Amino acid sequence: MSETAKKKFQLWVEENHRDTLTLRFRVEKTLFSGESDFQHIDIVETTEFGKMLLNDSVVMISERDEFIYHEMISHVPLFVHPAVRRVLVIGGGDGGTVREVLKHPGVRHCRLVEIDPLVVEGCRKHIPLTAAALDDPRAEVTIGDGVEFVATTDERYDLVIVDSTDPIGPATPLFGPEFYGNVHRILEDDGIVVSQAESCLLEAEAQHSLIRILSGIYERVYVYNYVNMTYAGGLWSFSLATKAGLCPLVNLDEERVASSGIDFRYYNSRIHRAAFALPTFQAQALAPYLTPFGESRTP
Amino acid sequence: MSETAKKKFQLWVEENHRDTLTLRFRVEKTLFSGESDFQHIDIVETTEFGKMLLNDSVVMISERDEFIYHEMISHVPLFVHPAVRRVLVIGGGDGGTVREVLKHPGVRHCRLVEIDPLVVEGCRKHIPLTAAALDDPRAEVTIGDGVEFVATTDERYDLVIVDSTDPIGPATPLFGPEFYGNVHRILEDDGIVVSQAESCLLEAEAQHSLIRILSGIYERVYVYNYVNMTYAGGLWSFSLATKAGLCPLVNLDEERVASSGIDFRYYNSRIHRAAFALPTFQAQALAPYLTPFGESRTP
Repeated sequence: MSETAKKKFQLWVEENHRDTLTLRFRVEKTLFSGESDFQHIDIVETTEFGKMLLNDSVVMISERDEFIYHEMISHVPLFVHPAVRRVLVIGGGDGGTVREVLKHPGVRHCRLVEIDPLVVEGCRKHIPLTAAALDDPRAEVTIGDGVEFVATTDERYDLVIVDSTDPIGPATPLFGPEFYGNVHRILEDDGIVVSQAESCLLEAEAQHSLIRILSGIYERVYVYNYVNMTYAGGLWSFSLATKAGLCPLVNLDEERVASSGIDFRYYNSRIHRAAFALPTFQAQALAPYLTPFGESRTP
Repeated sequence: MSETAKKKFQLWVEENHRDTLTLRFRVEKTLFSGESDFQHIDIVETTEFGKMLLNDSVVMISERDEFIYHEMISHVPLFVHPAVRRVLVIGGGDGGTVREVLKHPGVRHCRLVEIDPLVVEGCRKHIPLTAAALDDPRAEVTIGDGVEFVATTDERYDLVIVDSTDPIGPATPLFGPEFYGNVHRILEDDGIVVSQAESCLLEAEAQHSLIRILSGIYERVYVYNYVNMTYAGGLWSFSLATKAGLCPLVNLDEERVASSGIDFRYYNSRIHRAAFALPTFQAQALAPYLTPFGESRTP
């Protein structure tokens, strides 16, 4: 094929934000494309970022940078809580969060509740880098509505991770007060809930709303930041809320990090602490809702 | 105009990385477009990010997020060095770095050496948010080649800021050893040089090369990270190299930060420290070249 012909036949996938900003990724081929009851799902082989999962044309993960998101959503709470045994992951059907959680030998059980079976099916088939973890004997995949699950389950968890998409479409209730009230109910007394908390720059309103809701329900609420390559808008955040007095800086167990033997690619103790240092504009906007750092109130 | 017609007449500007990743910004109108001896320059009014400057179709600054880059390239060294009086900025013809530098009342003189007069002309006319600072009586704009300037000047500086574009086109020599040898020559004994050090994810090779070069010339070399909204690839870095023993953590003057009265929007003491916490993959890649933190070697 001539260079001109090649140029003509380029394949790209595009994520569009409010028709004012788009990210486009060059694609070698489409691996999977399907319509579920909830959304359109695509898995493509990109030229630069490995395989990529998109829900309704929004990038969920790419093989090149998924380690950042998955390490930060998992290891931060797991090195703060003294002994996480039972973990609930809501969303995250790609399996990347479960993979990182299960790197902690103390974790006995990790339940994933994913609303969309097609996400799990597609990732199991095409992205074993993340989805292989779902076959671990300590992992249990439940296809169902996370909102309903936390409202009705009798189970109790040390850590709940809300690995959700943006608050549009099926994930909207995962950003609401009723959901977080039920998460509070199913957390052990020293439990932690960590959530995908949107971008403080591009989606500031969604972040403020989530943090406001959490601060009405949990004793302590914190925000920490990370950066990946394939999410638009630069700085993205997770929220971390605790039922009792655990503090993500005071209770960080650096010795355990150092001796864990986990093959971190992004996370480390310094990054853990640094992630809670917020830019001035973000700290000011969230000041009414965040817990200040300081002495642990744990007995 | 009908919605369909509007859709047809959308204007976008696009930054393309190696034909595998593009960022596109919706544009309301073009304000300035010109061809200089060095590059093509566009200033556009975007829908979401305010006015935006592009050199050869690469985003330099946008009004919405330029504060992040300009605060981080300036305030970090200015709060580490005990008393910066004379500053040299190479590149940065938009004026944003000069604006932040001049917020420090101790700075007596800030010379900007910009190779391309069209950048300065366009920004003076259309982006006063950054370029107005160039009219400050303490600022002096020199149109000329920064490489030649540092090779021939008799002046001496406390701080040199290399506010350059990517190492393609006119900025290539600003990433080379000869240039940094000459910067060393014109720095005072306790001088600092800070440079735009590319993305550790998307342009890792360019970053490694720069840090390797600096580590062969300067006593201490550090890297710190920041994130903005309009640069592709997520995490971006600055290098900080010192001639004598100043250390960006040990010598950070937090009292001076707190009492400066500067209207920071991104910077603060915690962000300053956090920026030097590198992700594991970056810390490992740069380990042979970076100075470890610790006791200051300053007498």
